[in-house]
Amino acid sequence: MTTSLPLDHSGLGVLPREECLRRLGSARVGRVAFVSQGDPVILPVNHGMDGESVIFRTASGSKLLASDSELPVAFEVDGYDVDRRAGWSVMVRGVATTVEDQEEIKRLNLIGVWPWADLVERNHWVRIRTFSVTGRQTVHPVR
Amino acid sequence: MTTSLPLDHSGLGVLPREECLRRLGSARVGRVAFVSQGDPVILPVNHGMDGESVIFRTASGSKLLASDSELPVAFEVDGYDVDRRAGWSVMVRGVATTVEDQEEIKRLNLIGVWPWADLVERNHWVRIRTFSVTGRQTVHPVR
Repeated sequence: MTTSLPLDHSGLGVLPREECLRRLGSARVGRVAFVSQGDPVILPVNHGMDGESVIFRTASGSKLLASDSELPVAFEVDGYDVDRRAGWSVMVRGVATTVEDQEEIKRLNLIGVWPWADLVERNHWVRIRTFSVTGRQTVHPVR
Repeated sequence: MTTSLPLDHSGLGVLPREECLRRLGSARVGRVAFVSQGDPVILPVNHGMDGESVIFRTASGSKLLASDSELPVAFEVDGYDVDRRAGWSVMVRGVATTVEDQEEIKRLNLIGVWPWADLVERNHWVRIRTFSVTGRQTVHPVR
């Protein structure tokens, strides 16, 4: 995998879309970035995948509950190996939407995404409607 | 540490500022979020600390090189333990500035932050001027 990736302008290997989706599905923690009061913020979440959509739970009062408009977000998962100085990341760009449909909520509840932060109930589902999925991986020159 | 943390409104333990800075210093990889062409993006970087400032290298042409204005950013490090369903994160909010002063560049070069992505030279330093540092950790009820 590593040796045959095409490189981008910054010398990183470009992961194929299928591989990006596979890594989104196997990661247990991702990070969602959005703009709050004019400035970017990053929050980690326990996510799941519903087809090609990232889904996660959040609590009442969360800034991520876009009440009537759609909230532009980036969502990222990554992994790395310090000893090998190697890492990869996958980024989804899209909009966060609050799931309101009761049948859809019932179906998502069956997927079994349980937030680790469980002292306050996180009973709202957020779905990221995906515009793009991209992934990069460090590539070291052959010595 | 875990049991005595004060809780925030979402049921997460609030890490003290000193502990946040310690974790920023020991993490090898962080993620920087900023707004690019109107939408948030997240990029992983190998960072270092210069006092209480996050610093990292980037390549010519990077969107992170704020040429004449300061770029609002969030920077995040985290860690987790899947088996214990436990995690923590620390977020810095501030502005990214390109380091232009040659004496400062020389000094930063001595800190020894080497990007793992090394096929393309990353010879520009970015410093995050910090406005706030906050950290959270999952807290589970005592069973």
